[in-house]
Amino acid sequence: MKQIPIGISARHVHLSEDHIHILFGEGYELSAMKDLSQPGQFAANETVAVEGAKGRFDKVRILGPARKNSQLEISRTDAFTLGLQPPVRESGNIEGTPGIKVIGPKGEVVLEEGVIVAARHIHFHTEDARKWGIEDKQRLRVRVETDRPVIFEDVIARVSDQFALDMHIDTDEGNAAGLRTGDVGLIVD
Amino acid sequence: MKQIPIGISARHVHLSEDHIHILFGEGYELSAMKDLSQPGQFAANETVAVEGAKGRFDKVRILGPARKNSQLEISRTDAFTLGLQPPVRESGNIEGTPGIKVIGPKGEVVLEEGVIVAARHIHFHTEDARKWGIEDKQRLRVRVETDRPVIFEDVIARVSDQFALDMHIDTDEGNAAGLRTGDVGLIVD
Repeated sequence: MKQIPIGISARHVHLSEDHIHILFGEGYELSAMKDLSQPGQFAANETVAVEGAKGRFDKVRILGPARKNSQLEISRTDAFTLGLQPPVRESGNIEGTPGIKVIGPKGEVVLEEGVIVAARHIHFHTEDARKWGIEDKQRLRVRVETDRPVIFEDVIARVSDQFALDMHIDTDEGNAAGLRTGDVGLIVD
Repeated sequence: MKQIPIGISARHVHLSEDHIHILFGEGYELSAMKDLSQPGQFAANETVAVEGAKGRFDKVRILGPARKNSQLEISRTDAFTLGLQPPVRESGNIEGTPGIKVIGPKGEVVLEEGVIVAARHIHFHTEDARKWGIEDKQRLRVRVETDRPVIFEDVIARVSDQFALDMHIDTDEGNAAGLRTGDVGLIVD
């Protein structure tokens, strides 16, 4: 039984250090509100607003620490609200994706690109992956048994000794499958 | 190849004749804006507002004709916005479900029950079902091949000579699977 805990990611943004300084002020550093499942990652106390052609979200949570490139991860439902058509992408792969305006308490940034719908994926610690014979980048199928059972296909395995075992899906996927964070999925062959 | 066209249902409401009269005025009749896939069913020109403990939606489309009982069908995303926890149910099976306030141009109705998240289902004409060996109430699995492929399980077969072949899912399910109305699914064994 290859059981995987599931975490449902609400819309959130990763910011570069430069953008944090523009949005919150020179020299500003994010403060951690809550640790996330992946070691070193945290939900910050800070939020920003994002504004698209058709709509806006206030209080979009920033996940820290700062990254090389800023990136907004939203659900497809959110994308309709904002008036964007972001592709389904792996985190960090933002070339050619739509941009968006990000608004902080001290300034604004217009991202030229960086809006994605995150591709469903599982973080495996190297030891978990070895034990189950799973390789980095492998595509997996994960079944969930709920009142809305589904099998998610093309779930991307990401393997690192910096990762903790956790499957990440977005709110559309969680709601479509009747899931809550902490529920488990089963890798099926 | 058992291919099924897929229709994605946005939030909508079915109303009883009594409720139509309270909301729109005595003797009022709904007018058809657009025919739906099922014979005799239509999206009305008329809309209502619905208001829950935490939020509200204006311009919720009414689907006609009038039904015996009023029923609001929303996505789980919508349910969070309204502040409700409706169960996943088949249409018409509303006993013990949450209620909601419905607001029309001429009056308001507080439904005591009737808010559901619609269970994914396929309408089969009797001939389609016979050809494929599918029985009413059977649970099916349907695979979709998109940039977010999934297999939907527990898809309920509904068979009638009044039905036209069509699979109905909600916006969360459509967005989670990268689908648009008119895409096709494949019944898998």
